Amino acid sequence: MSLLSSTEFEARLRAVGAERYHNLHPFHRLLHGGKLNKTQVQAWALNRYIYQARIPVKDAIIVSRLPTADLRRVWRQRLEDHDGAKPGEGGLERWLKLTGGLGLDRAIVASEAQALPATIFAADAYVHFVRDRSLLEAVASSLTEMFAPTIIAERVDGMLKGYDFVSKDTLAYFGARMSQAPRDADFALGYCLENAKTREGQDACIAALTFKCNVLWAMLDALHHAYVEPAHVPPGAFKP
Amino acid sequence: MSLLSSTEFEARLRAVGAERYHNLHPFHRLLHGGKLNKTQVQAWALNRYIYQARIPVKDAIIVSRLPTADLRRVWRQRLEDHDGAKPGEGGLERWLKLTGGLGLDRAIVASEAQALPATIFAADAYVHFVRDRSLLEAVASSLTEMFAPTIIAERVDGMLKGYDFVSKDTLAYFGARMSQAPRDADFALGYCLENAKTREGQDACIAALTFKCNVLWAMLDALHHAYVEPAHVPPGAFKP
Repeated sequence: MSLLSSTEFEARLRAVGAERYHNLHPFHRLLHGGKLNKTQVQAWALNRYIYQARIPVKDAIIVSRLPTADLRRVWRQRLEDHDGAKPGEGGLERWLKLTGGLGLDRAIVASEAQALPATIFAADAYVHFVRDRSLLEAVASSLTEMFAPTIIAERVDGMLKGYDFVSKDTLAYFGARMSQAPRDADFALGYCLENAKTREGQDACIAALTFKCNVLWAMLDALHHAYVEPAHVPPGAFKP
Repeated sequence: MSLLSSTEFEARLRAVGAERYHNLHPFHRLLHGGKLNKTQVQAWALNRYIYQARIPVKDAIIVSRLPTADLRRVWRQRLEDHDGAKPGEGGLERWLKLTGGLGLDRAIVASEAQALPATIFAADAYVHFVRDRSLLEAVASSLTEMFAPTIIAERVDGMLKGYDFVSKDTLAYFGARMSQAPRDADFALGYCLENAKTREGQDACIAALTFKCNVLWAMLDALHHAYVEPAHVPPGAFKP
C-alpha cells in the first residue's frame, strides 16, 4: 500500500466522521429533537460528566509525551480550557453548571457513583489509549473535534427549543467549545498530516479516529439501553 | 468503621454476587431459556471471546505482582488452564471450539474485528484494573468465580435443551470450568480473608468485586442493546 496524498488522507479521516460520529446516534436525535424527558436529559449530562472529567487527564498525558516546548505549549492550552485559570472557571466547571442547571446535585455528579459502568469503561479506554498507543495515534484520536461544531450548533438550538428546563446559561459550555474545538482540531490535523509519514502511520491515524468514534458511540448506546424505553438501568446506576 | 469478622466479610462478598452477578441479567435469561436465535447466540459467543482472551493476560499481570514463588505457582495454574500445555489445548482454544461449533469463522473471531466496542472497553477495563489497583483488589476482582458453578450448570442444561445447533462437545469449555472455578475461587477468597487486614481493605475488596460484576453486566447490556429487538448494532460490529 502506498502513501496517501494529504488530500486523500484528510478525506479518509473525514469519512470516518461521516460514517461513525455520534451525531448519527439515535440517542442524539432524541436529545436534539426535544424528545426526551428531564430525567433522560439528566442521565445524559451525568454520564457525559465522566467523559468531560477524563479530557484534561488525557490531554495531560499527551502533553507529557510531546517532545518539544513548542508542541507542549500549544497542547497545554487545552488543559487551561478544561481546568480553568482559577477555581470556578474552565470547561469541567461549566459542565457542572450544566448538570446543576438540570437540577442534579454537584457532589453526586462529581462522585461518578451513579454513572453507568459502561460510560466509565469507554471514557477510561480513551485515557488508556492515549497512554499506551503511539503519540501519533494519541493525537489522531482527538480528531473527533473536526466534527464537533456541527453537532454543537444542532444541540444548542435543539435543546433550547425542545426543553423548557434548559436555558442558554446552562449550555454555556458549548459556547466556549464552538471556538476551541476548531482551533484544536486544526492543530491536531496538521500534526497528523505532517507526522504520518508512512501508509501504516496514516492507517493507524484512521483507526485511532475510528476507535474514538466508538468511544463516543458506546457511551450513547449505554445511555439509550439504560434510559430509553424499554429501559434497562444496570444495578447501582442513576435511577429515574 | 471497624474490621468485619471473616464470616461477615465473606457474607458481604457473597451478597454482591446475589445482587449483581450476571446470571440475573435479562440476556442470560434469554440465552439459558432457549429464547435466542442462532445469530444471537453467535453474537454472544463472538463477544465473550474478547473476555476469554483477556483472562490469561490479567492472570499473568497478577502472577507478575505476587511476591512469592508459592503464590505465583498457584496462580500460574490459571495460565495453564486458559492457554493450555500445548497448542490446541486450554480454555481459550475450547472457546474457539465453541464459536466454531456455532458456525463462526475462527480467524474472524480471533481478530476481534466484529466484537462490540463496548465489550472491548469492558474487558480491557478488567485488565487495567488488575494492573493499576492494589494486589488485594486485583485478587478480589476474580471472586466472581465464587458464583460461576451455578450459572454454568444452568447454562449448559439450558443451551443443550434450548438449541438444536448446540452440542455437548461445543460446550466442553464449561465442563472444565466446573472444577477449575471453585478451586480458583477458594484460593482467592482465602487470600482476601487473610490479607484484608483493615476495614478499608475489606471495603476495597467488596468494591473490586462490584467492579467485576459491572464488567460482566456491561458486556451483556451491550449484547442486549445490539442484538435483541429492537436491535441497535453499532457501526462495524457483527451483523446478523
